[in-house]
Amino acid sequence: MEPQKKLINSAESCVDDALLGLVRASGGLSLLKGHRVVLRSDLENLKGKVALLSGGGSGHEPAHAGASGVLLIVKNYTGDRLNFGLAAEQARNQGVAVDMVIVAEDCAFDQPSKAGRRGLCGTVFIHKLAGALAEEGCSLDQIVSKVTEILKRIGTLGVSLSPCSVPGCLPSFDLPPGDMEVGLGIHGEPGIKRSKVASADEVVKTMIDHMTNPSSQSHLPLKSGDCVVVCVNNLGALSCLEMAVVTRSAIICLESRGVVVARVMSGLFMTSLEMAGVSLTLMRADKETLRLIDAKTTAPAWPNLSNVCLSGRSYITEPQTTIKRPQDEKHSEGPLSPVMHKTLEKICSTLLEKQEELNSLDRASGDGDCGNTHAQAARAIQEWLQGHVVPGCPGKLLSVVAGLVQEKMGGSSGALYSLFLTAAAGHVTEGRSNAAAWATAMNAGTEAMKKYGGAAPGDRTMLDALCPAVDELIKLATAPSGGHMAVLQSAVKKAASGAEATRDLKARAGRASYISPNLVSLPDPGAVAVATILKTILEVLEGRK
Amino acid sequence: MEPQKKLINSAESCVDDALLGLVRASGGLSLLKGHRVVLRSDLENLKGKVALLSGGGSGHEPAHAGASGVLLIVKNYTGDRLNFGLAAEQARNQGVAVDMVIVAEDCAFDQPSKAGRRGLCGTVFIHKLAGALAEEGCSLDQIVSKVTEILKRIGTLGVSLSPCSVPGCLPSFDLPPGDMEVGLGIHGEPGIKRSKVASADEVVKTMIDHMTNPSSQSHLPLKSGDCVVVCVNNLGALSCLEMAVVTRSAIICLESRGVVVARVMSGLFMTSLEMAGVSLTLMRADKETLRLIDAKTTAPAWPNLSNVCLSGRSYITEPQTTIKRPQDEKHSEGPLSPVMHKTLEKICSTLLEKQEELNSLDRASGDGDCGNTHAQAARAIQEWLQGHVVPGCPGKLLSVVAGLVQEKMGGSSGALYSLFLTAAAGHVTEGRSNAAAWATAMNAGTEAMKKYGGAAPGDRTMLDALCPAVDELIKLATAPSGGHMAVLQSAVKKAASGAEATRDLKARAGRASYISPNLVSLPDPGAVAVATILKTILEVLEGRK
Repeated sequence: MEPQKKLINSAESCVDDALLGLVRASGGLSLLKGHRVVLRSDLENLKGKVALLSGGGSGHEPAHAGASGVLLIVKNYTGDRLNFGLAAEQARNQGVAVDMVIVAEDCAFDQPSKAGRRGLCGTVFIHKLAGALAEEGCSLDQIVSKVTEILKRIGTLGVSLSPCSVPGCLPSFDLPPGDMEVGLGIHGEPGIKRSKVASADEVVKTMIDHMTNPSSQSHLPLKSGDCVVVCVNNLGALSCLEMAVVTRSAIICLESRGVVVARVMSGLFMTSLEMAGVSLTLMRADKETLRLIDAKTTAPAWPNLSNVCLSGRSYITEPQTTIKRPQDEKHSEGPLSPVMHKTLEKICSTLLEKQEELNSLDRASGDGDCGNTHAQAARAIQEWLQGHVVPGCPGKLLSVVAGLVQEKMGGSSGALYSLFLTAAAGHVTEGRSNAAAWATAMNAGTEAMKKYGGAAPGDRTMLDALCPAVDELIKLATAPSGGHMAVLQSAVKKAASGAEATRDLKARAGRASYISPNLVSLPDPGAVAVATILKTILEVLEGRK
Repeated sequence: MEPQKKLINSAESCVDDALLGLVRASGGLSLLKGHRVVLRSDLENLKGKVALLSGGGSGHEPAHAGASGVLLIVKNYTGDRLNFGLAAEQARNQGVAVDMVIVAEDCAFDQPSKAGRRGLCGTVFIHKLAGALAEEGCSLDQIVSKVTEILKRIGTLGVSLSPCSVPGCLPSFDLPPGDMEVGLGIHGEPGIKRSKVASADEVVKTMIDHMTNPSSQSHLPLKSGDCVVVCVNNLGALSCLEMAVVTRSAIICLESRGVVVARVMSGLFMTSLEMAGVSLTLMRADKETLRLIDAKTTAPAWPNLSNVCLSGRSYITEPQTTIKRPQDEKHSEGPLSPVMHKTLEKICSTLLEKQEELNSLDRASGDGDCGNTHAQAARAIQEWLQGHVVPGCPGKLLSVVAGLVQEKMGGSSGALYSLFLTAAAGHVTEGRSNAAAWATAMNAGTEAMKKYGGAAPGDRTMLDALCPAVDELIKLATAPSGGHMAVLQSAVKKAASGAEATRDLKARAGRASYISPNLVSLPDPGAVAVATILKTILEVLEGRK
C-alpha cells in the first residue's frame, strides 16, 4: 500500500508552504517571522481590544487562520490543551491578561470518556462570536462569560465515506466499499459506529436524532420553536453537489421538528484533509447571537451570508408568463395513433435495455452518461404515454416528444433531439404524412442539428449515423410505394454502418473532440443510439406487415 | 467495480435536491417554479438593468448559481451552446433583447479542434465582471463589448490526481497510482497528457509554462510587468492544505517571471464533482478590471477578498519582543558532555529506526503520526548536535532539548516531552548531577506531565511506561552506588512491561480515548516510545562500563 497521492512539495514542508500560500493570497494576513503563526496585518487596529488566538494541528484548514484575532480558543484535545496551557502559563508569567476557552461540543459519545467531549467545527462559531465581541470592544471577562454560555448551546456530529491521510503517511483507517463511519473526529480517529451508506435524508435524520437524544450525556437539547444557526461542514472531499443535497436534508429535517433555521453556512470550515465526509453543527441562537454571526468580518474563509431568517421566507418564484408546453396540450386520436404509440414504446424499451452499453461507450470519450440521458428520455416518454392520448397528427407527436426530451433528457443529446424533432414537426401533419413527407421532415431535422450543433458528418457525432440514413430516405419521395420498405431497410443499414465507422473517426465536435484520437477505439455512443432508434422503427413497421 | 459512494438521496433526484439545498441555505436566492432555474430573490432590483443568465451541467457547483443575474454566459461546449442557442432564439422570437458570450479560455491544446477551446473556470471571472457592469447600469452592448475584450486576457489549465464520477455511474477514467492527468476538462474528459505526480512547485511551473507558451495556439500572452488576477480552483476534492500549497507555488512562480499578482481567489469555484485536482486561471487585469473584481456582491460563493495588491505588500511581521530560546544560547562543555552527547545521539538514531513501527501502532488509535513526530524531534536534535557544544550542565541540556521538541516535534508528544524536560531541568545542575538528583528530576518531570495532561497511569498514555520506571528510579536516592545499574535495569524493565500492558488498557486520555476499546489491541505508541528511550539510555550507560 502506498501513501495517498498529494499535490504538495514534501510532507515536511507542507504546513509551512500552506501557511505561506494562505498569507500570500490574503491581503489582510501576515506571518510572524520565525513562527508558524498567522497574524492580522492591521494589528494596530486591535489596540485596546481583546486579541483572539486560536490554533491546533494543521489539516483542518481553513479553520484556525481564517478567524479574526489574548483569548485562547482551544479545541478539547489533550495536545491542544497542553500546548495552549503552556503558552497561557508562560504569558501569565510575563504579566499578560490571558484566558482560555475550551470548545468541547462533540455529540458522538453517549458516555464521554475522561478526556471529555471533543472540540469540532463548533469552534468556528466561537471564533466568529468572540471576534465580533472583541471588535465591539468587550472586555476579556465579558467575552469569556458570553462565549462560555454560548458553548452550552452548540452540538456537532460528523460522518464520513472515506478515511483521510497525513502527507507521507498511510490512510488513518480502512473503510470498506459501501460503509460509512458515524461520529468520527477531525483527526481521522474512528467514530462510534460503522453503517452502510444510506440516503442523505436518512443519514442526516440519524445524525440529528443522535445529536439531540436526551439519553445521551453529549446531546444538544433542541425542541420545537428553538431557533438555530446550522453549519454544514465539508470534512474535505465531499463534492459541492453532495454538500448542497445534505444542506437541503438538514434544513428539511430541522423544520420538520418545528425548529426555526435562521442561518446556514455550508462549505469548508473545519476539515480533515481529504476526508469525504460532512459534519453538522447546530447552535441554538437568540437575536444577540444572530447579530454577532451577521457582523462584518475580514476573515477570508467566512462565507458571504445573507442576514435573512431562512425558515419562513419565500424561496419559490412563480414564472411571470406561462409558456404552454406541447406535452400539456389536449390531443385527439387518429388512424396513425396506434402504430406511433407502439413505435414509441418499442424505442423506449430498447433504449432502456441499451443504457449501460451506451454509458460504457461514452466513458471512453465523454462523461459516461449517454445511456443515462437516453434512458431518462425513454422513461419520460413512457410516463407521458400512460397518461395521454397519442395525437393523430404526427407533427404534434413530434412536438410533444421534443418538449419531453428538451425538459427531461438534458445534455447535448436532449438539445439535439429537440432541435431535430421541432424542425421536423412542421413537415408531417395529419393530412400530409406519406413517405415523402416523412423523408422531408427527417431531412429538415437533420439540417437544424447541423446548423446549431456546429458539426458535420465525419466529425464523430450522431450525424454520422443520421445523415447517411436521411440521404437514403430522400429516395422515398420518388420510390414506388411497393419499394418503401426496401428504402427503409437500406437506410437502417446505412445508419448502422455509419455508426460503426465512427470507430475510425477523429472527434471534431462534442466533448470527445477534446481528447487524443488514439484514446478512442469504440464507436460514438450518439451515433449508436441513433442507429438503434432507426432499427427499432423499422422492426415495428416490419412486424405490422 | 462499484459506482463511487455518494452522500445523496438518489442519482435521479440529486440535481433537484442540490438546487433546493443551495436556495434554502441562501437568503438571497429563489427557485423558478417548475424549472431547474435559480433566480435572485430581489428581481425587482434588476429593473432597468441587464440581467445575466449563466448555466451548464450540474456537478460544477458552486458555479452557475453563485453569480448575480438577458446576457447569456455560456461555456464553449457543444451541448451548452445548443441549449443556450435554442433559448436565445426562442427569447428573441418573443421580442427580448438578448445576447450571448461564449467563454473558451482553455489553454490545454496547442492546436484546438474544430470545437474550439473549452470554457472552464475563467467563466467565473466573466460572471463577476459582467455582474458588476450590469449592477452599474451598463447597457447590454457595453457589457458584451467589454467582456469580449476581457475574454482574450484569460487562460486556464487543470491537473488532477483522480477521476470523478457522475452519481450512479462508474468513474469517468482510470488514473493509476502515482499518475496525474494534465489539461483535462471539467466533465471528466481525459486531458492532454499523463505524467507522474511531481512536487506542487514543479506541477505549477509546468502548468504556467504550458499556458503561456507562445508556440501554442491556445496560449495566454504573459510578460514581465503584466498584472494578473489568479484563480486557484479546487476541482472538488483537493484538501485545503494542498490548495494553500498550490496557491503559494502559483504566486511565487508568477512573481519569479516579473508578473504582478494583484488578487488571488483560492477555493471551490468551478468543480468536477469529487475530482482531486486543481485548475489555474490567469486574467491579465488593469485598474478597471480590478475595480470590477473588487465590487461588492451578494453571490454566496464569491470569496471574502481584500482589495490590496498582493505582490509587493509586506506579509511578514517581526516579533515585537524577542524571547531567547535555550537552544540559541552559548554553552560551555564539561566532563559530562561526551556521555550526554553519545546518549542523545543514540536516542535519535533509535527513534528514526522505529519511525514506521510507531506510526503503525498509532494508526490503530490516533492519527498515525507518532513515529513521524518522534522522528522530527530526533532530526532536530541531531541537527543541533552538529552545530553546538553539549553543555556540561545537564539541566541546561534538558532545557535545550525542551526547546527543540516544543518547536520541532509538535503535537501532544512535543508538549508533554517539553513539559517533562522543563520541569526536570531545574533539578540537575553541573554541581548536582548524581543519581539521586536524576531520580528527583525524572520524578518532577513526570508530575508536571500528569498535571497539565490531565492523565494518570492506567489511562493508556506514555505515563504507563514512565511512572513505573520513575517509581523504581526513586530508589537511586538510597541505593548504594554499586547498585545503581541494577536499579536502572529494573526501571527499564518496568517501563517495557508497562508499555506492553497498555494493550489491555482502555484509553482514558488522549485521542485514543475517543474510540471504542475493542478496536485497539496494540500497545500505546507513546508508552512504547518512552520505554524505547529509557532502554537506549541504559544501553549507552552499560556500554560505557
